[in-house]
Amino acid sequence: MARFVTVSDPADPRLADYVRLRDVNLRKSLEAEHGLFIAEGEKVIRRAVGTGYPARSFLMARRWVEPLSDVLERTDAPVYVADDATVQAVAGFPVHRGALASMKRLPLPATADLVADARRVLVLEDLVDHANVGSIFRCAAALGVNAVVLSPRCADPLYRRSVKVSMGAVFAIPYARMTSWHDGLSELRAAGFTLLALTPDQSAVPLDKALAAVEGPADRVALMLGSEGDGLSSRWLDEADHAVCIPMSAAAMANGVDSLNVVAAAAIACHALMR
Amino acid sequence: MARFVTVSDPADPRLADYVRLRDVNLRKSLEAEHGLFIAEGEKVIRRAVGTGYPARSFLMARRWVEPLSDVLERTDAPVYVADDATVQAVAGFPVHRGALASMKRLPLPATADLVADARRVLVLEDLVDHANVGSIFRCAAALGVNAVVLSPRCADPLYRRSVKVSMGAVFAIPYARMTSWHDGLSELRAAGFTLLALTPDQSAVPLDKALAAVEGPADRVALMLGSEGDGLSSRWLDEADHAVCIPMSAAAMANGVDSLNVVAAAAIACHALMR
Ligand SMILES: C[S@@+](CC[C@H](N)C(=O)[O-])C[C@H]1O[C@@H](n2cnc3c(N)ncnc32)[C@H](O)[C@@H]1O
Ligand SMILES: C[S@@+](CC[C@H](N)C(=O)[O-])C[C@H]1O[C@@H](n2cnc3c(N)ncnc32)[C@H](O)[C@@H]1O
Repeated sequence: MARFVTVSDPADPRLADYVRLRDVNLRKSLEAEHGLFIAEGEKVIRRAVGTGYPARSFLMARRWVEPLSDVLERTDAPVYVADDATVQAVAGFPVHRGALASMKRLPLPATADLVADARRVLVLEDLVDHANVGSIFRCAAALGVNAVVLSPRCADPLYRRSVKVSMGAVFAIPYARMTSWHDGLSELRAAGFTLLALTPDQSAVPLDKALAAVEGPADRVALMLGSEGDGLSSRWLDEADHAVCIPMSAAAMANGVDSLNVVAAAAIACHALMR
Repeated sequence: MARFVTVSDPADPRLADYVRLRDVNLRKSLEAEHGLFIAEGEKVIRRAVGTGYPARSFLMARRWVEPLSDVLERTDAPVYVADDATVQAVAGFPVHRGALASMKRLPLPATADLVADARRVLVLEDLVDHANVGSIFRCAAALGVNAVVLSPRCADPLYRRSVKVSMGAVFAIPYARMTSWHDGLSELRAAGFTLLALTPDQSAVPLDKALAAVEGPADRVALMLGSEGDGLSSRWLDEADHAVCIPMSAAAMANGVDSLNVVAAAAIACHALMR
């Protein structure tokens, strides 16, 4: 059974996990240092707990205690109960969904273990935008991708905004983070994956053709996606089995629309892979 | 030739077009009332001017005058030159790209005129999120859609965030706004379009099958997409020729991931249409 603690001082050190939730830089270092992430809202808290993440603590307005009682009954973590003004003062913005949990991160699997039983994998290189990462997890889950591998510097799927945008898919789909960018792809290759590097470069192999050439239903495919600004690094493009493009309208290219958003590219590629 | 005016008072009434750029509600009413929209950054300003939107005024730090000189030479609008602190005080946030323009909106075409020569059209019902609207325009342009039709309440493609996220595609692809939600689809039907309503409902016709059934290369297709929360209204679903779904993984559905983000759905559908 959770311990309930009424709090009213936004500077209370026990609320340190929840400070300034919109300050990306602060949150990145704070969450990494303490190995935590924030779950926001009843639904996300339920998903996080259901996935097996242990709670460090909860912070919520009193009206959320009752709807979450089944969750709170099964935890030893403290539940800080505060009025909305206090929660807002700590978090730095009006927390509409009114309930927050600080969850303990779990060790991520090694890439080799993650992909051992996977057939369809996404590999994300250095994506910066948390919303994009979250949306890609949502696509990946909905479209039958088995696992996601992140480059060492790729944005965090458990960042509050990623979690929210993913609609909980970051809990539905397992992922790993490479320890080395330089050699990161070798484990996928060793596991027998065909590496397809997605690039807007229209001289690359069209996606459908590349997928048709991957023979047999037993084959394993890893789709590599690059960052919003620079795209895939030349090292990763070189290491891929094929550079692959989604054909775009020539008229659009002439008009300066020369690539798709990375989420759109991921959606099209995952859908093509699923068929 | 533009008139250059040095300004330093953030409350200067001549800067009223630029106030509080992140205050969505204020901006919506201010922009509608004055028939303006904001272009942010050198690239977007160039695109907006190039598309034929007349400038009401410009606001920029001195360092942007030189790179934009060719644009400024060809306008009669005043160019307010201010230091970064003043621009920030007006806009309400640090304007990284340092140059802003207030542009005059142009009358939108009537739906019937817009689609007269179009073959592939997107129809957006009541989307709320400006980033989603911008991303969908980017997809649409890149994937050969000819025009976009918006429901009366759909979020504005010329809102600053839509423009930014679209990478300028809101200037590359023509659009119209229906005057009536109730009868809005009838003009598309009258123009001979097959109306496909995209829904996550997995009992609907699979997308590929629906597109295969639209016969002949001369055929005209309108893809209808619904809002982030509720999806398409039942009226619009009923009015469509077919309700169409993108098949999703059964495992994901069991895990609570029961729809795609609307941008992902748009990307997959536009790509399927293009082939
Ligand atoms: C916005 S794009 C990056 C643009 C960057 N300037 C480049 O040239 O790669 C982000 C990522 O989306 C994917 N992408 C975008 N458009 C694509 C297309 N037409 N075909 C295949 N992948 C695409 C690629 O993985 C790319 O790295
Ligand atoms: C987030 S969904 C809306 C979910 C809403 N609960 C519903 O049932 O429609 C937003 C829009 O994306 C499109 N969409 C999402 N997933 C889809 C799928 N699997 N197949 C077809 N369209 C989809 C639809 O147009 C939908 O209206």
